[in-house]
Amino acid sequence: MSLDFQLIHKDKNTRARAGILKINGIKVETPVFMPVATQGAIRNTPINLVEETGAKIILGNTYHLHIYPGESLIKKHKGLSKFLGWHYATLTDSGGFQVFSLPDKKISDEGIQFRYEKNGQKVFLTPELSIKIQEDIGADIIMVLDECVEYPCEKDYAKRAVERTIKWAKMCKDAHKKENQYLFGIVQGSVYKDLREYCAKELLKLNFPGYAIGGVSVGEGLELLKKVIEFTEPFLPENKPRYLMGVGLPEDLIESVERGMDMFDCVIPTRFGRSGTVFTVRGKIRITNKDYRRDMYPIDISCDCYTCKNFTRAYIHHLFRVKEPLGATLCSIHNIHFYQNLMKNIRKAILEDIFYDFKNDFYANYFHKL
Amino acid sequence: MSLDFQLIHKDKNTRARAGILKINGIKVETPVFMPVATQGAIRNTPINLVEETGAKIILGNTYHLHIYPGESLIKKHKGLSKFLGWHYATLTDSGGFQVFSLPDKKISDEGIQFRYEKNGQKVFLTPELSIKIQEDIGADIIMVLDECVEYPCEKDYAKRAVERTIKWAKMCKDAHKKENQYLFGIVQGSVYKDLREYCAKELLKLNFPGYAIGGVSVGEGLELLKKVIEFTEPFLPENKPRYLMGVGLPEDLIESVERGMDMFDCVIPTRFGRSGTVFTVRGKIRITNKDYRRDMYPIDISCDCYTCKNFTRAYIHHLFRVKEPLGATLCSIHNIHFYQNLMKNIRKAILEDIFYDFKNDFYANYFHKL
Repeated sequence: MSLDFQLIHKDKNTRARAGILKINGIKVETPVFMPVATQGAIRNTPINLVEETGAKIILGNTYHLHIYPGESLIKKHKGLSKFLGWHYATLTDSGGFQVFSLPDKKISDEGIQFRYEKNGQKVFLTPELSIKIQEDIGADIIMVLDECVEYPCEKDYAKRAVERTIKWAKMCKDAHKKENQYLFGIVQGSVYKDLREYCAKELLKLNFPGYAIGGVSVGEGLELLKKVIEFTEPFLPENKPRYLMGVGLPEDLIESVERGMDMFDCVIPTRFGRSGTVFTVRGKIRITNKDYRRDMYPIDISCDCYTCKNFTRAYIHHLFRVKEPLGATLCSIHNIHFYQNLMKNIRKAILEDIFYDFKNDFYANYFHKL
Repeated sequence: MSLDFQLIHKDKNTRARAGILKINGIKVETPVFMPVATQGAIRNTPINLVEETGAKIILGNTYHLHIYPGESLIKKHKGLSKFLGWHYATLTDSGGFQVFSLPDKKISDEGIQFRYEKNGQKVFLTPELSIKIQEDIGADIIMVLDECVEYPCEKDYAKRAVERTIKWAKMCKDAHKKENQYLFGIVQGSVYKDLREYCAKELLKLNFPGYAIGGVSVGEGLELLKKVIEFTEPFLPENKPRYLMGVGLPEDLIESVERGMDMFDCVIPTRFGRSGTVFTVRGKIRITNKDYRRDMYPIDISCDCYTCKNFTRAYIHHLFRVKEPLGATLCSIHNIHFYQNLMKNIRKAILEDIFYDFKNDFYANYFHKL
């Protein structure tokens, strides 16, 4: 068992990369999108139907899982995959990201003091505790505890957060002992070029098996996101996977792959699916719109997901209208499949050195410019 | 395409029967339990996972489907099966049963005037309209409009309801024209032996391809239910399927099969599943009970359903605790499978002439008498 990243091909016109990540015997083609099983389930969706979308790695949230059901129960199940009935790879975040949005947190160099929003339980999350929890949860890839700052963020504060992030990364690395589990570093630095560079260079000294760009998807928007990646990516090692945390919409993924990112996670496919917003090659549609009341087509005529092979837009519209939870399930499956298929098509375009053509075609359709 | 019922074997000690119902090319082994897709879906449950339980016929509710999405949309999909993505047989009730529980209905010989509870829409449901709606919904088996009385019910009123039921049965039969769709008669008569006999004999003159016992599961309890079946069953033709409407718990099914019933439907598997009540060979359990918080066994160790093959009680308990809708899905799948498996085991016992042994063993386990 090991983690092995092979860079297969670099697009000749962009920084887009196609690779193969082998994690404990699971083969994951990159660029890859990881659906999010926030509280121990991909919401509303039987895990076998998630597997049918082609997803090979999913993400669990340490913050939520620590409280319910607690990591000891997951450990008792021999890890997150077995707990969920999932047969492929898993990744957990450090728990930090959720904490930074809480109102009454206190951050010191030792860790983060907070109360769990749902039950008031007090937690003091230290780098060591985050690693301990993640070891017990037992995902294949785990993340260092970092300090994720808001956007916008004063440079002075961003600098202090970077220093803390570097310090915590060392502490996490020292604390992490579990075999066949791979700890990724996270580059912070808000939107400041010199801080991103500094953070990346310091983390590289710790020789993590993979690196993430964190502190994005916090309201900075696509244009700044692109800049942050452009600031940071040149300092990340070419032979290791690069994970852009918490991103995003299809266009965010495309722009980020173009700038050299390999791994992504986001709740959008399931969150949008729950409310009936579904992705198609011709853009997003709201299946609850009355236009679809008698629409006999599948959500996306070019899609071969479980939902599109079996159900019409009119049927799914009906399910939402009568508040039948199966509607959320069918839309979530479709959206997860849409994302998996998007990444597959992106990868194919990279391998054929036609990433720009792919992107232009995709946007022309997706943004109705055809 | 046709409806064909073959009586394969009668248990030598009881009135239990094993048969094969061939409906438009679908083979359904009887006794059979039909899960209920009230509003166009088995609640919370992807239909492919319902198919995996071995179910071969499901029921849709005409009352709900008439309002949302309306039968014309279902007709446009070429029938209920295609609308739902279901590959086997379907049955619809007449819409009458739901109406009888409404507060402001008005019943006359012409039909039933009511308002749809969810949107106030006024409907005048006549025998002809019920048939017209059911023809458009396009189930393989449809039901006559009948007058289902409450329990308890004065004999005078029950008698009038029986007369109306007979009259409406004739009107339904005259109105029904669709090919490859089979209209069953419904015997009413509350708990009165002579009324049940009279109703059955009158309906037999109309030569329906199958007969139901209606007006049960309205609060009369198992002892009276058994009597009603015993009153009625001797007057039903042996070579036609007998459908006991809206029943019930596992013990209700066993007692009813013992008394010669072949077909059943009930929302119990999914309704109980939604709230975390699941069936096991050792009786019902509430998965939300804290006893199951760290329970590493499947819901039922002897069960080979999707849920039991892949998930622990602790996992499902966790899903309910964090209000993850997947918990309802997994419990519904298990319960539907439990019912399918129960019917399979009942049928096997009938074929082997050991129905009583099966029943005694089942009860001993189920009611913890072992």
